[in-house]
Amino acid sequence: MSKFWSPFVKDLVPYVPGEQPKIANLVKLNTNENPYGPSPKAIAAMQAEVNDNLRLYPDPNSDRLKQAVAEFYGVRTDQVFVGNGSDEVLAHAFHGLFQHGRPLLFPDVTYSFYPVYCGLYGIPFEALPLDEQFQIRVEDYARPNGGIIFPNPNAPTGCLLALEAIERLLQANPDSVVLVDEAYIDFGGETAIALVDRYPNLLVTQTLSKSRSLAGLRVGLAVGHPDLIEALERIKNSFNSYPLDRMAIAGAAAAFEDRSHFEDTCRKVIESREALVAAMEARGFDVLPSAANFVFARHPQRDAAEIAAGLRERGVIVRHFKQQRIAQFLRITIGTPDQNQALLSALDRL
Amino acid sequence: MSKFWSPFVKDLVPYVPGEQPKIANLVKLNTNENPYGPSPKAIAAMQAEVNDNLRLYPDPNSDRLKQAVAEFYGVRTDQVFVGNGSDEVLAHAFHGLFQHGRPLLFPDVTYSFYPVYCGLYGIPFEALPLDEQFQIRVEDYARPNGGIIFPNPNAPTGCLLALEAIERLLQANPDSVVLVDEAYIDFGGETAIALVDRYPNLLVTQTLSKSRSLAGLRVGLAVGHPDLIEALERIKNSFNSYPLDRMAIAGAAAAFEDRSHFEDTCRKVIESREALVAAMEARGFDVLPSAANFVFARHPQRDAAEIAAGLRERGVIVRHFKQQRIAQFLRITIGTPDQNQALLSALDRL
Repeated sequence: MSKFWSPFVKDLVPYVPGEQPKIANLVKLNTNENPYGPSPKAIAAMQAEVNDNLRLYPDPNSDRLKQAVAEFYGVRTDQVFVGNGSDEVLAHAFHGLFQHGRPLLFPDVTYSFYPVYCGLYGIPFEALPLDEQFQIRVEDYARPNGGIIFPNPNAPTGCLLALEAIERLLQANPDSVVLVDEAYIDFGGETAIALVDRYPNLLVTQTLSKSRSLAGLRVGLAVGHPDLIEALERIKNSFNSYPLDRMAIAGAAAAFEDRSHFEDTCRKVIESREALVAAMEARGFDVLPSAANFVFARHPQRDAAEIAAGLRERGVIVRHFKQQRIAQFLRITIGTPDQNQALLSALDRL
Repeated sequence: MSKFWSPFVKDLVPYVPGEQPKIANLVKLNTNENPYGPSPKAIAAMQAEVNDNLRLYPDPNSDRLKQAVAEFYGVRTDQVFVGNGSDEVLAHAFHGLFQHGRPLLFPDVTYSFYPVYCGLYGIPFEALPLDEQFQIRVEDYARPNGGIIFPNPNAPTGCLLALEAIERLLQANPDSVVLVDEAYIDFGGETAIALVDRYPNLLVTQTLSKSRSLAGLRVGLAVGHPDLIEALERIKNSFNSYPLDRMAIAGAAAAFEDRSHFEDTCRKVIESREALVAAMEARGFDVLPSAANFVFARHPQRDAAEIAAGLRERGVIVRHFKQQRIAQFLRITIGTPDQNQALLSALDRL
C-alpha cells in the first residue's frame, strides 16, 4: 500500500465482474446479458442524441427517464431514483441507508458485490445461510440489524422468494430498510414495487442491463418511499450531479416506453430457459428452479471447474464461483436457442 | 430526516449545479459548456456504438480510452484513471486519498463541490483565503494537512497558478497528495501532467466536458503515479465495475485522437475570450485575468445579482454565486462571437 491511501483502501477487496473477453465468436454465457438486442425504439432514441448537443450537460435529474419509469410502474416520480447502473444505485443505498452500526443481513450465497460495498462504507454484516435447497429462510432475518438486502430472484441461484414472504420480512423489520434487488425479476418473478406504497421501509432496485438488454448503457433505478429516495438523491448530489449521459437518459426512457419489445424478449428468454433446463436435466445435471435469465446447475459426477474449463476450450464461457458452498455449480446465462444448442453440444463433447 | 437514513445524510449539503433550463433560444452562458460541438470523429465513434451490442457490458477497464489518453500525454496506461465525469473521479480521490484525519486544504474561493465531498466522506477541511487579487498564495499551504486540492485555472475566478508554484507546493508537501483539478487547463494553462513522473504525490484530473465539448457524455480522468491510480481503481471496483458506457469509451477515445479539432476549438474560444474581456472592460467591468473558458467580472457601480436577473429577462443566463466574497461577481461562459455579442447587447440594454 501507499502512504497516500486513505487507511481503509488497503483492506478493500474489490468485486470481480465476469470476464469481458475481447475475442470474437465466443458463445458468451457468463455475465447474464440478454441474447436479444435492446428495443429498436431505444436505439433510435439514442441515435437522436448523438449530435452537437453533447456539448451541453444532460438533465441532472433525468426527469424524462423518471417519468417513463413512474408511468410503467404506476408510481410517482418522487418515488423513483435513477443512476449509472444498478451497481451505482446499490452503492448509494449502502452509503445512505445502511450505515447504522448494526449488521446488514444478507444470504451467504448471493450477489458478491454486497460485502464489497460493506468494506467500502465500513458497514458490519452477517451472511445468513440459505437452507439446503438454497432458499432464503425469512425467519432467520428476525434479529437485530441495520438493514436487509437480497436479490430476488437470488443470484447466482436464480431462486425466487414469494411476495408474501417479502411482506413478512417487511412487517418484522419496521425500523430497517429492506432492499429487494430485482435485477432479474422480469424473467419469472413479480416485482415488489406493488408494495412500496404500504411499506415505507421497502426499497426496490432494478437494472436495464438484463431484461431491457442495455448492459452497455449503464442505467439502474430504485423505487420506494420518497424519504428513501431523498437519501439517495442527497448522496447522488453530493457525489456526481450528472450520473446519466444524454444517450442513457433517452435510451432508457424509450426502453421503458416500448412494452411489447420488452415482453416479447422476456418471453423468448423464459422459453429458452425451460428448454435448456430440460436438456440439462436429461444430461444428469441438477438445476435449481430459476426465475432468472440464467440457470445454476451442478452435475453429481463431474467437477464444475473442469466443466467450465472444458467449455471454454470449446468456445463457450460460463461463470464458475470459487466460494466453497457453490464451488460445484455453474451459472449459465440463457442464450438464444442456437447458443444454448452450442452449449449442449460442447457439454456432449467434454 | 428519516430514521432510515445513515446518520451523516441529514447534514449533507449537496452541490448545486448551474441551471439546465428546458427553454429554447436561451443564450446559455452559465455552465461553462463549449460553444462548439465535439469532434466529428467522436460523433462518428459514438454512432458506431449505438447498435445491438449495447446488450453487452462495456469494457470495465475502458482500455481503449486509457490508451488514447496515455498516447495524448505521453504517459503509461497504469498512470491513467477514467470515470463517469471528473466529478466522479474527484469523489473517488476524496474517498481514497484524503481521509487521513488531518484537514484537507483548498482556497476559500474555489469549486464549491470540494466541501460537499468532505461532507460525504467525513473529511475535515480548511479553506485558505485567496489574496486580494484572488490568487492562490502557495506559502499559506505550508501547514499540516491531509491533502491539498485546487482547480488550475481556479474556478470560478479563472486565474492560473504557474507550474513553478505548483512544484513548490509539491516539494513542500511530500507526504500529502496534491490534486490539481485541470477542468479548464486547455484554455490557456500548461498541464501539470508533465510533472507526474517526478512527483509521486501529484494527481491531475481533467474532464472532457469543457475543451473536448462532451459535457453530455460524462467522462473525466486522472493522471498520476500508479500507486495513486491503484487507490482510485480499488475504490471504483468496489463501487461500480462499469462506470463508462460503450458510447462514452468510444467517443472519449476518439475525442483525444482528434487533436486538430481540439486545438482549433480551443483557439477560437481563447480568441473570443480576449475580445469579450476587452468589450467588458470598455463597459467599465473589472475582469479577473482568465485562462479558462469563462470570465469572472464585476462592475464597480452595478449589483451583480441585478445584472444577472436583468440578463435573464433578456434571454441570457450567466452564473451568480451567493458566497459573500464573490457576491458582486458574475461568471460568464465564453460563447460563440454571436452569443458574446448577444450578451453585450443585453448588457447595453440593462
